[in-house]
Amino acid sequence: MFITNPEIEAYLKSLVHINDSVLEKMENLGHKLNFPIVDRLVGNLLYIITQIKKPKLIVELGSGFGYSAYWFAKGLEDGKVVLNDYKEENINLAKKFFKEGNLYEKAIFEVGDAVENAKKYNNIDILFLDHEKSRYLEAIKQLENNLSKEAIIIADNVLWHGKVIEEDKDKKTEKINEFNEYMSANFKTSILPLRDGVLIALKK
Amino acid sequence: MFITNPEIEAYLKSLVHINDSVLEKMENLGHKLNFPIVDRLVGNLLYIITQIKKPKLIVELGSGFGYSAYWFAKGLEDGKVVLNDYKEENINLAKKFFKEGNLYEKAIFEVGDAVENAKKYNNIDILFLDHEKSRYLEAIKQLENNLSKEAIIIADNVLWHGKVIEEDKDKKTEKINEFNEYMSANFKTSILPLRDGVLIALKK
Ligand SMILES: C[S@@+](CC[C@H](N)C(=O)[O-])C[C@H]1O[C@@H](n2cnc3c(N)ncnc32)[C@H](O)[C@@H]1O
Ligand SMILES: C[S@@+](CC[C@H](N)C(=O)[O-])C[C@H]1O[C@@H](n2cnc3c(N)ncnc32)[C@H](O)[C@@H]1O
Repeated sequence: MFITNPEIEAYLKSLVHINDSVLEKMENLGHKLNFPIVDRLVGNLLYIITQIKKPKLIVELGSGFGYSAYWFAKGLEDGKVVLNDYKEENINLAKKFFKEGNLYEKAIFEVGDAVENAKKYNNIDILFLDHEKSRYLEAIKQLENNLSKEAIIIADNVLWHGKVIEEDKDKKTEKINEFNEYMSANFKTSILPLRDGVLIALKK
Repeated sequence: MFITNPEIEAYLKSLVHINDSVLEKMENLGHKLNFPIVDRLVGNLLYIITQIKKPKLIVELGSGFGYSAYWFAKGLEDGKVVLNDYKEENINLAKKFFKEGNLYEKAIFEVGDAVENAKKYNNIDILFLDHEKSRYLEAIKQLENNLSKEAIIIADNVLWHGKVIEEDKDKKTEKINEFNEYMSANFKTSILPLRDGVLIALKK
């Protein structure tokens, strides 16, 4: 089962040129540790969306060691990106990479439950969901009032290796289907079959 | 050869709810005539990008009977979308649909060569390429100075039924590959494997 033809995906990757040794180092670490970073195609899209939107405040749920946040930070003009992870060692690694890439002052680093931490922020212009997939729906419900009027919600892995179209779904996949349906009904939503599925949504 | 798993594509389509009888009529007409409209998934994405960008001026190259332009117009707050086609009968049909959907005053209708017509416009915020595929590259080169500083370029069919990864490419496909490479080298570019491939780019 694949979402995008793997040869097409390889072609798309070959066209994204990044000249940033820190990003490359992060990609290598992700691949070495088999850590689920959003990877280059999605990272590049986050960068482009940030450049179009010009957000003041981006909040991530589930930042790992900061790969996706690094792309957001590169796209920012004068806003900030909030990184959130409950594993302190991840956030420490992220700090190291952001320092190395001269992006440290564009970031705020938080350790703890992502949704609880995010509640401290208001007027979130981009909310990025990449923590526990079965908790996306409760996250968006809990954080809706923390979003700015024209906020963008972005969520990764919403096609969950294609499991969302299988007959016999496990609990986690069912939760993702529910999230996709909720977003499609209550927001202006586009789901892109990029890598593992990227949802982009605006308030109605 | 497919770009996106067809069952995934069907799932994505099932999630886009449009409550617009004019759009549905246009889709039915497109399917009946086998006319290559961008279709619902891409149309919905054009709408979302327009809502994020808030452009004053959108210019389309190759509007057919106005399906993609209709999505752009729906996304506009106070800007205009310029439709361009060298077939007058297409533009007349577009006018009819725009009137029916109460979007007529958001549009400017042009008949003639798309690139020549587009040259009359400056500060284009979104340039949408959907005319003759082998002419995308010359179009962007000729219109670069007509773009606003932070313009978005969007091009449809840039994966050309997957032919861009075939060994033996026809001339048209080679031209599309050249366009993709040019855009990736000279713009900030993301190519989405949505339907037949959608390129989104910003000036560097
Ligand atoms: C998919 S990874 C994030 C990858 C990262 N966004 C990137 O692309 O570089 C998910 C991360 O979320 C963290 N996480 C999961 N549930 C969380 C929660 N409730 N609160 C905080 N962090 C959480 C995990 O520790 C893990 O690092
Ligand atoms: C793919 S269709 C456009 C579909 C339309 N964008 C939509 O999604 O509803 C391409 C259109 O471009 C027009 N076209 C092709 N080359 C052109 C040119 N050089 N100038 C003007 N129109 C052109 C054709 O007549 C045709 O209607």
